[in-house]
Parts: sequence; structure tokens; C-alpha cells
Amino acid sequence: MEIAILLFNGFTALDAVGPYEILRSVPGTTVRFVAAEAGAIRTDAGSLAIVADYTLETTLSPNILVVPGGPGQAALMKDEKMLDWVRQVHAKTEWTTSVCTGSLVLAAAGLLKGLRATSHWLARDVLREYGAEPRTERVVRDGKIITAAGVSAGIDMALRLVALEWGDRVAQTIQLGIEYDPQPPFNAGSPEKAPEAIVEWLRSRSRFLAQK
Amino acid sequence: MEIAILLFNGFTALDAVGPYEILRSVPGTTVRFVAAEAGAIRTDAGSLAIVADYTLETTLSPNILVVPGGPGQAALMKDEKMLDWVRQVHAKTEWTTSVCTGSLVLAAAGLLKGLRATSHWLARDVLREYGAEPRTERVVRDGKIITAAGVSAGIDMALRLVALEWGDRVAQTIQLGIEYDPQPPFNAGSPEKAPEAIVEWLRSRSRFLAQK
Repeated sequence: MEIAILLFNGFTALDAVGPYEILRSVPGTTVRFVAAEAGAIRTDAGSLAIVADYTLETTLSPNILVVPGGPGQAALMKDEKMLDWVRQVHAKTEWTTSVCTGSLVLAAAGLLKGLRATSHWLARDVLREYGAEPRTERVVRDGKIITAAGVSAGIDMALRLVALEWGDRVAQTIQLGIEYDPQPPFNAGSPEKAPEAIVEWLRSRSRFLAQK
Repeated sequence: MEIAILLFNGFTALDAVGPYEILRSVPGTTVRFVAAEAGAIRTDAGSLAIVADYTLETTLSPNILVVPGGPGQAALMKDEKMLDWVRQVHAKTEWTTSVCTGSLVLAAAGLLKGLRATSHWLARDVLREYGAEPRTERVVRDGKIITAAGVSAGIDMALRLVALEWGDRVAQTIQLGIEYDPQPPFNAGSPEKAPEAIVEWLRSRSRFLAQK
């Protein structure tokens, strides 16, 4: 079972590495980090680079596609070569998945028309412009497409995916292996739960502007 | 404020990237990925490489040190040059932190003698061999040393650290920014909660063997 995780300049590291850590732990899977060009691909912050060992051209039929988000997704949404690759790969995947604003890339590729989907809470409404039905759940499955909310939600998404594809036992084993018994110090992880002033401050400086 | 995250062959990606995503989001911080030699450093699984932009020699006084874990930590624990660097850096840090079996590296450097600390649940008892007092809490602070439990616990550790150093508001803002409102699909993230058969199976094939 081959898993492709897409990298692009300005991706968000945890969007990609959360699902990576879980999916690479499933026996029999191989993970490929894929980008338009092979080599070191920098995050939005610039201080971290993950190596893309594979190019789009050499990775045309992964069983699972993971598209992370990050400010760099805005450029991707206008990159016809990239969107073609996403469409071509999606046609043959068993599962097409996204984390955070990665769902906007799937949307721009036309894959979410008429489907329920989610994204980072600051970007969720943009999905509507592409004909998708934004949902507030942390992980949203519609057919073979699974979209996750912002950044850290990729961990929950990948565990759900493992349970769907390989069964609960495999997912539980990996969850215990990565000791995923989360204890956030605050109850502030969603706009419904966080202090209103913080929600508004983040809204005011949101970089998730994806004009169609 | 400079943050150094140590990389080494056979590190676990999420151990490093969880804290990275949080600490790099604090205004005014710079993060350096540091290794014995600069260049791409591969994880335990081999399919992911993060670029170390800095060497040990050029990073001698970070304010915060983060030591991730992963099977590669066993070699680190016998690497006197590396342990010297850890001791030298620790002498000047404001905070010295670890995720997962990264705490065994701190222990091997002699930093945990007489201190409360934690590690991956499969490795916790090894801490005792180095004079530390193993604890079952997910995040353990003793003085300026903060150790986290396995892999995903680095996210909770880093949020705690941000709250301690920069205040609750900054930590809550970052938590909302990465939408950290975890919803694991199973209640299986600790040995106390997971099905007994899964706990025993992981114990039987544990790779966290760190003989002194």
C-alpha cells in the first residue's frame, strides 16, 4: 500500500507529519513525500524543510493521497499542473485526504463539488465557493474523500483512516504506540471553545485568503 | 529567543515537529534544527528526512533545547561528543526539554539525576537506571527541565512551555491556530486505557532497549 504526502513551498509541517507518523506505522505501507521538484521543501515559517524524495511524475498511482495545508496552498490552487496531478491521482486512489487548507486544493481541483468537507476553521467557508458543503466536524468523510480541520486534526483523521482501512485494532495499536492520550493545557482548540477575543484576533489577521 | 531542536539518525518525526509547530508560532522566536552534521537527517522509518540547517558547533547557546526521541536515541546515549554538547547547552538554557525517549539522552548526559521525569511508556523505567524518578504524568516539569511522554505528548509539552514562558494567552492563541481540539477515535492512548492485549503485544516487541 503506497501513501503519497504532497509537499509544496509554504506547507505547514504538522499537517504533513501528523498523518505521516500514523500511516508509516501501518505494517506493509510505504510513504513517499512528493513535490513538483525533488529536494528540500520549506514550511511556511521557513525554519523547517522536509525532503521530497519523489516528483509528481514518478508518483502517479498511490493508494492514499494526503494533501496538507499551509499558506502555500494559495499558489497551489492556481497551479494547473499540480491540480491536474491531483485529479489524475485521485481517479485511482482508494482514499484521497487533506489536512487544514489542503482541502482547498482538493476543492480547486474540482474534487469536492457537492460533497461535505472541512478545513481550518478560518478557511471553512471558502469551500462553499467551490461547491462543497462546509461542515464543522473535525474529520469529515464523504465517499473516499476524508478532510480534516486545522493542522493537528490530521492526527485524528489518520487514525480514523487506519481504522477504516485496516481495522480498529491496528489503529488502537498505533494510537498507543504514539501515546496519543492528548491533554491540552487549555480548552481553547476550537472557535466555539476559545476566548472570544482570541478568536477575533486570529480572524483579523487570517492569512487563509483564497480568492477564487 | 532561540530554540534548538536536535536531530539525529533514527529520530521520530512527530516528536520533533509537534513542538516545532507550536514554538515556531511564538512571535519573536527562531527555531534551528541542529545535528552533528548539517544536511538531511532521516527518521526511524527512513521515509522522511528533515534538514538540519545548523551543526552542534554553531549552536551553543539556545534559550530552549528540545530533544526528540526515536530508536536512534540508543546510539546518541553512547555518543560522548553529543552528550558533551547537551551538557554544555543545558548549562545556559532557560528550558531544557525532551519528548519520548529524548529524556533518555538527557538522562545519559547526567542531567536527570534526582529529578522527576517521564518518557515513552515503554521506556519510562529506564530513567531509574540514571538516577531519575520516573513519573506517569504526560508532561513532567522539574526545575527548568520538562520531559514529555511518548511521541504525540510533545504537543502538550510545548503548549505548557509556551504558557510558562509567554503566558496563557499566547498558548491559547497558538492552540486555536493549530486547532488543537483533539478527538482521538479510541480511548487507547495510554497503557492504562488501551486493551491489555495491545499493551502486551507492544511490550513484547519494544525497541526501546537502552542498556546502560
